[in-house]
Amino acid sequence: MNFTINTTQKQELLDITDKVNEILQKSKAKTGICNVFVTHATAAIIINENHDPNICIDLLNALNKSFPDNAGYLHDRIDGNAGAHIKAAILGPGETIPIENNKLKLGTWQSLMLVELDGPRTDREIQVIILEQN
Amino acid sequence: MNFTINTTQKQELLDITDKVNEILQKSKAKTGICNVFVTHATAAIIINENHDPNICIDLLNALNKSFPDNAGYLHDRIDGNAGAHIKAAILGPGETIPIENNKLKLGTWQSLMLVELDGPRTDREIQVIILEQN
Amino acid sequence: MNFTINTTQKQELLDITDKVNEILQKSKAKTGICNVFVTHATAAIIINENHDPNICIDLLNALNKSFPDNAGYLHDRIDGNAGAHIKAAILGPGETIPIENNKLKLGTWQSLMLVELDGPRTDREIQVIILEQN
Repeated sequence: MNFTINTTQKQELLDITDKVNEILQKSKAKTGICNVFVTHATAAIIINENHDPNICIDLLNALNKSFPDNAGYLHDRIDGNAGAHIKAAILGPGETIPIENNKLKLGTWQSLMLVELDGPRTDREIQVIILEQN
Repeated sequence: MNFTINTTQKQELLDITDKVNEILQKSKAKTGICNVFVTHATAAIIINENHDPNICIDLLNALNKSFPDNAGYLHDRIDGNAGAHIKAAILGPGETIPIENNKLKLGTWQSLMLVELDGPRTDREIQVIILEQN
Repeated sequence: MNFTINTTQKQELLDITDKVNEILQKSKAKTGICNVFVTHATAAIIINENHDPNICIDLLNALNKSFPDNAGYLHDRIDGNAGAHIKAAILGPGETIPIENNKLKLGTWQSLMLVELDGPRTDREIQVIILEQN
């Protein structure tokens, strides 16, 4: 299964937990793992605190401080988005999450999030693979 | 399967390889993958060098240098642990490890470790999902 | 399945997408996940932009700026490669990638890469576990 999502900012964190849980519910898988993977080299999938939206701003600021955009990268002569590629490679394009009772087994304060690093973009594609445990 | 672990420091790396291998042995799975996932937004799971304990101190110091606690984060007005959330999101809550001969297929110098970033805490919960290859 | 690869530089990114797709084709798995895992504590597996080789140089430079080698680490008194261990733990030893039509489901600009952080080395070992979806 896959779904797409539009982003509206240059950099943005979008909570996709509910969307993935909907797909899970259709699968009827009770126990197992769910692999969530974004097929773009300037985006990432992370698990992050979901209650205070400020933590999303803090995280993007911290990433930009350590891995700034436009820092004289060689790739920027071609495309201008090396900083996005670097952050995407470090965060990684996917997460593999346990399934319990047909739902993602996340902690109270954990959400699954798409990280947009070179937006805004239409149709960011996210793959969801569910493997049930026998 | 899941298990819990108590942490005793503000920040700490704890080797959980043996505990996960015990669970694996009970499962009798010979080949496949093992997903290990901590359900907390201020902890992480990593694979790290296991022989010299100094490498754990070096890693925490390096993380704190690039992503310091108490660096004026917006979230710190509420909870004071933004630095822990940021490091947890970057390291990630889980690892998926190959299984060979009913054991985690790790290199000689690799161990599976829980990273405590906002301790000490009781009952950090770790999920273990084993999927056998046919 | 596993395969080995020789590295020729101290630090290097090597595209292993084709090699893993070859193994996938032999498995005949149509849909599912593919776990790719390097069993060394000074190497990592990432997904990275594949078209402009400069992005690999930019990524290594950015990692070295935030997590430099030889920065007075405690472990360097023993082995001199703490910086490699730190970067390996942060990037992580594995990726789990969706399979579609018996191929890795990667985006147009995504490649699977081995990150050598303490080379050159012979026989870096990479494990590939394929789990098919029913």
